[in-house]
Amino acid sequence: MSTFGKLFRVTTYGESHCASVGAIVDGCPPGLELTAQDIQVQLSRRRPGQSDLTTPRNEKDLVHLQSGTEHGVTLGTPIGLLVKNEDQRPHDYTETDLYPRPSHADYTYLEKYGVKASSGGGRSSARETIGRVAAGAIAEKYLKTVYGIEIVAFVSSVGKIHLPALLAPPSLASDDNEDNDNVDDAISEEFRKLLATISREEVDKHPTRCPHQTTAEKMTQRIIRAKDASDSIGGTVTCVIRNVPSGLGEPVFDKFEAELGHAMLSIPATKAFEIGSGFRGTEVPGSKHNDAFVRRPDGSLGTKTNWSGGVQGGITNGEDIYFRIGFKSPATISQQQETAQYDGTSGTLAARGRHDPCVVPRAVPIVEAMAAIVVLDQLLQQDARKAAASRLPPIKTLPPTMVMPKKL
Amino acid sequence: MSTFGKLFRVTTYGESHCASVGAIVDGCPPGLELTAQDIQVQLSRRRPGQSDLTTPRNEKDLVHLQSGTEHGVTLGTPIGLLVKNEDQRPHDYTETDLYPRPSHADYTYLEKYGVKASSGGGRSSARETIGRVAAGAIAEKYLKTVYGIEIVAFVSSVGKIHLPALLAPPSLASDDNEDNDNVDDAISEEFRKLLATISREEVDKHPTRCPHQTTAEKMTQRIIRAKDASDSIGGTVTCVIRNVPSGLGEPVFDKFEAELGHAMLSIPATKAFEIGSGFRGTEVPGSKHNDAFVRRPDGSLGTKTNWSGGVQGGITNGEDIYFRIGFKSPATISQQQETAQYDGTSGTLAARGRHDPCVVPRAVPIVEAMAAIVVLDQLLQQDARKAAASRLPPIKTLPPTMVMPKKL
Amino acid sequence: MSTFGKLFRVTTYGESHCASVGAIVDGCPPGLELTAQDIQVQLSRRRPGQSDLTTPRNEKDLVHLQSGTEHGVTLGTPIGLLVKNEDQRPHDYTETDLYPRPSHADYTYLEKYGVKASSGGGRSSARETIGRVAAGAIAEKYLKTVYGIEIVAFVSSVGKIHLPALLAPPSLASDDNEDNDNVDDAISEEFRKLLATISREEVDKHPTRCPHQTTAEKMTQRIIRAKDASDSIGGTVTCVIRNVPSGLGEPVFDKFEAELGHAMLSIPATKAFEIGSGFRGTEVPGSKHNDAFVRRPDGSLGTKTNWSGGVQGGITNGEDIYFRIGFKSPATISQQQETAQYDGTSGTLAARGRHDPCVVPRAVPIVEAMAAIVVLDQLLQQDARKAAASRLPPIKTLPPTMVMPKKL
Amino acid sequence: MSTFGKLFRVTTYGESHCASVGAIVDGCPPGLELTAQDIQVQLSRRRPGQSDLTTPRNEKDLVHLQSGTEHGVTLGTPIGLLVKNEDQRPHDYTETDLYPRPSHADYTYLEKYGVKASSGGGRSSARETIGRVAAGAIAEKYLKTVYGIEIVAFVSSVGKIHLPALLAPPSLASDDNEDNDNVDDAISEEFRKLLATISREEVDKHPTRCPHQTTAEKMTQRIIRAKDASDSIGGTVTCVIRNVPSGLGEPVFDKFEAELGHAMLSIPATKAFEIGSGFRGTEVPGSKHNDAFVRRPDGSLGTKTNWSGGVQGGITNGEDIYFRIGFKSPATISQQQETAQYDGTSGTLAARGRHDPCVVPRAVPIVEAMAAIVVLDQLLQQDARKAAASRLPPIKTLPPTMVMPKKL
Repeated sequence: MSTFGKLFRVTTYGESHCASVGAIVDGCPPGLELTAQDIQVQLSRRRPGQSDLTTPRNEKDLVHLQSGTEHGVTLGTPIGLLVKNEDQRPHDYTETDLYPRPSHADYTYLEKYGVKASSGGGRSSARETIGRVAAGAIAEKYLKTVYGIEIVAFVSSVGKIHLPALLAPPSLASDDNEDNDNVDDAISEEFRKLLATISREEVDKHPTRCPHQTTAEKMTQRIIRAKDASDSIGGTVTCVIRNVPSGLGEPVFDKFEAELGHAMLSIPATKAFEIGSGFRGTEVPGSKHNDAFVRRPDGSLGTKTNWSGGVQGGITNGEDIYFRIGFKSPATISQQQETAQYDGTSGTLAARGRHDPCVVPRAVPIVEAMAAIVVLDQLLQQDARKAAASRLPPIKTLPPTMVMPKKL
Repeated sequence: MSTFGKLFRVTTYGESHCASVGAIVDGCPPGLELTAQDIQVQLSRRRPGQSDLTTPRNEKDLVHLQSGTEHGVTLGTPIGLLVKNEDQRPHDYTETDLYPRPSHADYTYLEKYGVKASSGGGRSSARETIGRVAAGAIAEKYLKTVYGIEIVAFVSSVGKIHLPALLAPPSLASDDNEDNDNVDDAISEEFRKLLATISREEVDKHPTRCPHQTTAEKMTQRIIRAKDASDSIGGTVTCVIRNVPSGLGEPVFDKFEAELGHAMLSIPATKAFEIGSGFRGTEVPGSKHNDAFVRRPDGSLGTKTNWSGGVQGGITNGEDIYFRIGFKSPATISQQQETAQYDGTSGTLAARGRHDPCVVPRAVPIVEAMAAIVVLDQLLQQDARKAAASRLPPIKTLPPTMVMPKKL
Repeated sequence: MSTFGKLFRVTTYGESHCASVGAIVDGCPPGLELTAQDIQVQLSRRRPGQSDLTTPRNEKDLVHLQSGTEHGVTLGTPIGLLVKNEDQRPHDYTETDLYPRPSHADYTYLEKYGVKASSGGGRSSARETIGRVAAGAIAEKYLKTVYGIEIVAFVSSVGKIHLPALLAPPSLASDDNEDNDNVDDAISEEFRKLLATISREEVDKHPTRCPHQTTAEKMTQRIIRAKDASDSIGGTVTCVIRNVPSGLGEPVFDKFEAELGHAMLSIPATKAFEIGSGFRGTEVPGSKHNDAFVRRPDGSLGTKTNWSGGVQGGITNGEDIYFRIGFKSPATISQQQETAQYDGTSGTLAARGRHDPCVVPRAVPIVEAMAAIVVLDQLLQQDARKAAASRLPPIKTLPPTMVMPKKL
Repeated sequence: MSTFGKLFRVTTYGESHCASVGAIVDGCPPGLELTAQDIQVQLSRRRPGQSDLTTPRNEKDLVHLQSGTEHGVTLGTPIGLLVKNEDQRPHDYTETDLYPRPSHADYTYLEKYGVKASSGGGRSSARETIGRVAAGAIAEKYLKTVYGIEIVAFVSSVGKIHLPALLAPPSLASDDNEDNDNVDDAISEEFRKLLATISREEVDKHPTRCPHQTTAEKMTQRIIRAKDASDSIGGTVTCVIRNVPSGLGEPVFDKFEAELGHAMLSIPATKAFEIGSGFRGTEVPGSKHNDAFVRRPDGSLGTKTNWSGGVQGGITNGEDIYFRIGFKSPATISQQQETAQYDGTSGTLAARGRHDPCVVPRAVPIVEAMAAIVVLDQLLQQDARKAAASRLPPIKTLPPTMVMPKKL
């Protein structure tokens, strides 16, 4: 269905060529200052046509708030919002309609619904993500206002061009010697520092949204090469969430990383997700992979390393949450493809108009939005539990195994 | 919460040292032949103590069906089931209780709930997965009976010991030349053949559950090395689902891979998930990554390659679904660890008793179970849509863009 | 939250003075012919200002479809729709704002949210029901097209003016002799015939939407009396659903009548719900209340009487489903009221402008809409089960107690 | 499905003749003192065979807690529990199996599932309610401990024997003069006092669970009359919930009364639900039905009357919540019935063994349980909102229409 979230919940509608795309955002805490501008900022970061590297269509994507706020303050009631589709032209039927586009959703949507939108892939359209970005901006406004939670995503690879290992998530640092356990016993200091400090301003300094300028330039070349070849190229986005309280994540099926993975894998073109040490962590022995506890300056517990990526046993531990998502190379390319028609006849699908050769720079705000939705939704669930538990009278003689242990 | 699924739904209860662990499985189609033995087979594959490589505790894990069947046939009503905990001993309070175990759930459970089970990590216990395996066995019985759906998982790596590239998912075959697009333009034939033919019998031939004997032997050595060092080691599990009908997966938030990723990332110790070409697919240009359509022998459409992993636009296309999950090295190790106590005092956590040095062989049936649950749940949702749509009268003049196109 | 339904699902937004009210309708079967006009018909029946008996505000309430259809056919994707609010004037602050309106939602909304919409009751506004009526019209189009399901609601009482007992649901026919079991041993033939034949056209013949003209005239007088006294009056709506297949309703918590009651009691101003014999049925001994089975002309089983109201054990049995809903007298009245201010100061709340003295005629399409949503949602859930079960191979030797019994 | 509730959630399993009936109760706040005895008390009140008036089967119904507590304190994790079925005898096939029992669930379950339990009605069995009563007892323990919330249900009618009007909910006090608005302008003082003071101890003083001894005696006679005639008789249960905080209930579809009605109408044999003035309130003009606000001794707002039944606009206002539920006469009777067989053949269904001639006394704890579940579930949802809102910084210049008004 088109709804995500339990207590903070977004429902979206719309495809490429209908009147508008939009969303209903339910469960926003009441009393939050919120204007269309709070949302527009991220919508504009998502918008195509921001640089030569992305699709030249210049959609304006102005958000119209319909309900849920008065005088710039949320009422706690559902926030309706929409963005008009500029391109509502009926699709002209041509020979290309005989072909399901390879690796696109044309074929599977027809298999699923028996009918199809003229645009082919229906709801798999990137325009569907507008509602998500809007909902995420609302969630984020709350999270930032109350907790100072910061969510920053950036491009960590385009094709084979990756951030230097020291700046990248641990999965890239593998040592191929099978008999050697002498892995780096921590994620790199540089990477951890990047996670701790990276800001959206820095990310946006380069059109690729890669925060390392040399690498960003190489990525630009790679994207231009794809564009010139009427081809496309994929990449990865890495995201950090800072200042999340401990205790979020619902055992056992709705672990924090399970909800986060669900959210990320629902973004079009994603094929992979890893949190913390991810696939790389499978190669590091437990004795080196375990995050030893240390006392933080404020007296609370932190971890010396952060292979866990801020989540242990499905529950946040207060450390930075970081994860990486893989986006496949866009299926829509501007070159001929040998494939088959719906009826099985083999043939050549003609090249179509210009498309985005690489979507990862534009995926950045979508990743941030889905992350914000997950955090607020989990936060509200934990709030309910915590508020309810806090009102219980203390139990006088809880056995020592059930409480915060005292020194023997 | 402790419930997964919409129309086929499992709710689990239980932790390490309570009376029993169990589940309620709701939404099973009525009229299916089902006995405890159908479930026991997979529970026994999950059970510890199956070989020297896993934990020596010999839990018997006999399932007791409570409801939902009569005379070996499902009634369509909830199936209650439970497995008694043999070890219900009260935990003796010792110095180790002063320490949250590093990278374990002790600390985060206490942060979440304010109290903790004497076993520490509460529901993060591996015993919680018993209910999942049971539910999955029920789902699988239906899927196999009706569609011949086969779900086979196997161990694809232990530490740095991976299946040979030709037999492994594409993410392992990366070519590091940044300027070179000459990637293999398909997943390897050997891997595709493995996916098409691998059986549980073959998987179970070796205690590691790795289907390649030479690699399996190396994995054994690696696990023994971890065991001898009082250490642990992680790994990956790869899974294939065959014969799934096209059209499954709910746009947009509950895409097939999003639900599947959610399910897998809810298994204890998982940190990563990728479907089809996964992270590797981000490096392959669209022109080579796209799966061209071809006519299958039965006249339906298939794809020449299968980088998509059986899912396009979040909806199954009828090809084999394959995915890979990363399991971190177990946090519980039998050696001393420098860390901090709950109150922040630094110290040395003493070694505890023997534990599983490597969980991936035992994770195999859990992965299969969660996969079966997702497939049946999505199948039922699509069944509802399809049944409803099929009763509508045909629309006489649907525009050509909305239907299966005919030749121009 | 603002979402209703599992597989057919409506989410609404909007309050009195925001930009628009609207809904997202998810899960509509694909391939259904649907235009805005299908929806407008019921919206117009819900609209105020249809007669002298209702509020004089003449809202136009034109629906704008945003997505989910192309060329007048549903795609199976979410249908976004909205109706603009004509009255978006900011509310001027006056002395009346010192008072929570008695029996209105002003006070409770402020208690719930801590802030309040300038209109006071926020989402309790009758305009919220526009989204429901639209969603119901969509559901109904499907139900009528495929099953010939007919849903007709009518006004069965206004104040103390009730339909004559023979035409009314059984709860009005009580015999007060405590020692006398000689109740009518069936609901009246006239009432059953009314249920079987009543149409919306007949209902709409009189502005009160009461299908018995003499009673309708009395109701008119009663409403005019309330209006002239600057007062208000409540009433009941009775609804019948015909041609619903047997087998709908999900044991045990989502019984058909439980979902139906939930839906009806979510309509503003409702205080009571009964199905079939309702409260009256509690007084009739089982021997007279039981609906004996009879063979229908088509060979299937029907019931001789229908005290059950078409539902047995929470599951539809194929007979007409009928139920009655009580709407309290509107809280907003045009006369002074002695009450207290928010701060507890007692005082006199001044009369406000004109309002609807009686809402039951306008409630008729809302009741029909919620009924349609419940039926389609339950139908889709049963479709999934039935489709799944139908594919199972027959079990050769099912014990006789588990199947349709054969003659001994 | 077999799950009820969002944040406090119960899932039940089991039918009449399987191994056990049970439930998983998820979302219980951690740190609550809870033992099996807390649950057993209400289970014993639900149990058959408590007096001559109910079924002679003497089920012991001992609850076995499986998980979720340690040392008598809740962990916050799911509480598994079960009660063994003493009667697991296979049902012998006899001529009665040729007949679906009139007004029972035999026919509809077979229509729904295609197969049936040997007991006929499957999950419509009264034993299914054991899980609900257990879950309700857990919810109630929390509500009582923290808020002093008291939930007391009692029998308000058996057949035509009703509590005297002054002690009964307002729907019984109708004045049939159509032109007369001079209704009692409040629910009776006696009834309001009864609501404010009634306790379970008083209710249990008489086996009928009617708190008015003279009426209780008449009810006894009525039940004995039904029993002697091998017949059955229905009745109503009235319930009050005291000390519920204001602000509970989720606009718009999950209004407090909508969830409550849903919960009550999911109890077997219920056909009607009304809250506050219910059907009676539809006859009282708004000017008399409105509950004027007054300052309570503690300075907060209360209402002078309570026609609303503690809920306004779907949200609790802090006044006593009261509602009434109608239970039809039990369908299972010990006399012959003229009806039809499954195949349509008309015939006589022979009398079966002894059954409960009147279930309302035993329904009392079930009603209380469902009420407790709804209150706690809604409380947790509001807790989440309130906790989230409370952390927002105050907005300096909220317009006066959006806040608690100050004196002009």
